[in-house]
Amino acid sequence: MTSRRPSLAVVGATGTVGRVLLGLLSTRADVWGEVRLIASPRSAGQRLTVRGAETEVLALSEEAFTGIDLAVFDVPAPVAAQWAPIAAAKGVVVIDNSAAFAGQEDVPLVVPELNAPAARIRPRGVIASPGSATLTAILALGALHAEYGLRALVLASYQAASAERRAGAETLRAQLAQVAGGHAGEQTGDLRAVVTDNGPFPAPLALNTVPWVGAAAEGGWSSEELRLRAETRRVLGLPDLAVSATCVRVPVLTGHSMAVHAVFEREVEQHRAREILRDAPGVVLYDDPAAGEYPTPNDVVGTDPVWAGRLRRALDDPCALDLFLCGDNLRKGAALNLVQIAELVAAELR
Amino acid sequence: MTSRRPSLAVVGATGTVGRVLLGLLSTRADVWGEVRLIASPRSAGQRLTVRGAETEVLALSEEAFTGIDLAVFDVPAPVAAQWAPIAAAKGVVVIDNSAAFAGQEDVPLVVPELNAPAARIRPRGVIASPGSATLTAILALGALHAEYGLRALVLASYQAASAERRAGAETLRAQLAQVAGGHAGEQTGDLRAVVTDNGPFPAPLALNTVPWVGAAAEGGWSSEELRLRAETRRVLGLPDLAVSATCVRVPVLTGHSMAVHAVFEREVEQHRAREILRDAPGVVLYDDPAAGEYPTPNDVVGTDPVWAGRLRRALDDPCALDLFLCGDNLRKGAALNLVQIAELVAAELR
Repeated sequence: MTSRRPSLAVVGATGTVGRVLLGLLSTRADVWGEVRLIASPRSAGQRLTVRGAETEVLALSEEAFTGIDLAVFDVPAPVAAQWAPIAAAKGVVVIDNSAAFAGQEDVPLVVPELNAPAARIRPRGVIASPGSATLTAILALGALHAEYGLRALVLASYQAASAERRAGAETLRAQLAQVAGGHAGEQTGDLRAVVTDNGPFPAPLALNTVPWVGAAAEGGWSSEELRLRAETRRVLGLPDLAVSATCVRVPVLTGHSMAVHAVFEREVEQHRAREILRDAPGVVLYDDPAAGEYPTPNDVVGTDPVWAGRLRRALDDPCALDLFLCGDNLRKGAALNLVQIAELVAAELR
Repeated sequence: MTSRRPSLAVVGATGTVGRVLLGLLSTRADVWGEVRLIASPRSAGQRLTVRGAETEVLALSEEAFTGIDLAVFDVPAPVAAQWAPIAAAKGVVVIDNSAAFAGQEDVPLVVPELNAPAARIRPRGVIASPGSATLTAILALGALHAEYGLRALVLASYQAASAERRAGAETLRAQLAQVAGGHAGEQTGDLRAVVTDNGPFPAPLALNTVPWVGAAAEGGWSSEELRLRAETRRVLGLPDLAVSATCVRVPVLTGHSMAVHAVFEREVEQHRAREILRDAPGVVLYDDPAAGEYPTPNDVVGTDPVWAGRLRRALDDPCALDLFLCGDNLRKGAALNLVQIAELVAAELR
């Protein structure tokens, strides 16, 4: 449209994902004109550094979007549902990280490595970015699907505390301090007697696994499990893909993991599947168990790619693969995918 | 054979499982004559309480088995492989918790709720108890199999540190104290810089998930994954059952969890599947997510049963169920199953 550099608003700039996003904007090739920081009135007035410059955070308002070309939102879903249409009505292209729009047909759901063209068709002026669980698995699955044709998925997640924003990480840190001190170290210690605050989690998380993420949905499913299924189907363009997911929170600060059992239309060959993952955009193959090489959250935190390891052809099905994936839920799982979509739209606007 | 009460030796009495076993012997209906405690020469001379009486621990030797009817072994596999035949040659019925015999055709693999009669046929005088991962899932699976006919399993485990004996639990406790103090709380903190000792684990476990349990086997599989597959097939009497397992260690002291996707021969009905689990021996159904009810390791530690929750019929396959299971890896996962097998044999001997 114009040759000027587009202006970008970061809505939710003071949050956990917002801060990672500012870090990415400061280190990636700079395609932006103004970068404006926006947050709730409570956080307005703070000064944050982006691209080396201290920038004051503005309060979220209709006026805050004046002169803005693109806005990335990382705010709770109800806030996004309210404010994205207001920004879009002013001509802003909104890229939203909440679940507010991820299920809506007229809002494209974009993972740039897999379906970049979808970002061009945005009748409501809004583009959605998938949830962090979906983004942990989708790059590896997309690459394997392109070769073998995906037929069914069984997923079990190991999801980190920081996906529940600052409250999630702070809650786990506080619980760790409580259990590290004393008698919760005993095998029969009851965490409930030691842990004083579950924060955003439905049960104590330190020294525990909590098989529940999100809200209750039909049939005993959690909203997170249904979202993972719906988003995976949508990004891969497989509306009938069979997906069974169990989403579990684990006592990890940052870094989602996922155990994946993927069944394909065609027979898979382990050596070729390794090549596909090695060459897949945004994926690092890290897979030599005999040498102690498999991804863990601690290995991947702070890195951009999703890491794939433990690749095995199923012993009882020549068309199935098992693997283990790890990604930083704040980077590719959130801020990085938002920035990548923004850069995609910026290239189109220029 | 005789009406006297059989004598029992506990080999590995001073270990993590051994101590839980002594606790069980002290609280369950007492069917035993002498209970003799045996351990490595290093631990001999210790005095432990069993059935209210202080008892001196004897050093493992051929003589230590004189006059013993049954012996439960919880020792490393090479120690079991060496000493079980020595005890058996003296007429002792050996019940072993290691992997030394679990794969051998002429050694029955017993879970009393499911295949008690198998314990009677023991040509080598040895009975094996499955590993703790297998015992986390097998009771629920066995009950569902009896109704619907099991066809395939996809398993993802969340395995606790204490399954690696005392060193496992102590390592995780020490790492927790190290990370709770300081900068490993940061999202980009590298645990390797803070954690000084991985103990029996191949990577730092605090604040991490480690997708590796056991030794390297063919095709990228771990020995734990292959053991889980082989033992599940054997106990259920399904030599061709399709099983894909991913075994992952998590920072939990005690309490294994498992995400299960089970495919059956026949269509399943969620309400009926709930009844089956509710009525299954050794299983507690704890499944009302809307009321915050699903099992976590912290809920189940110190209890005998395996807890089943998150039961869902697969959305894309009327013959498949997804569920989440939790059990105390030191109780049903180890000591309790050993004691149950011993009681089974004791009833036969009396």
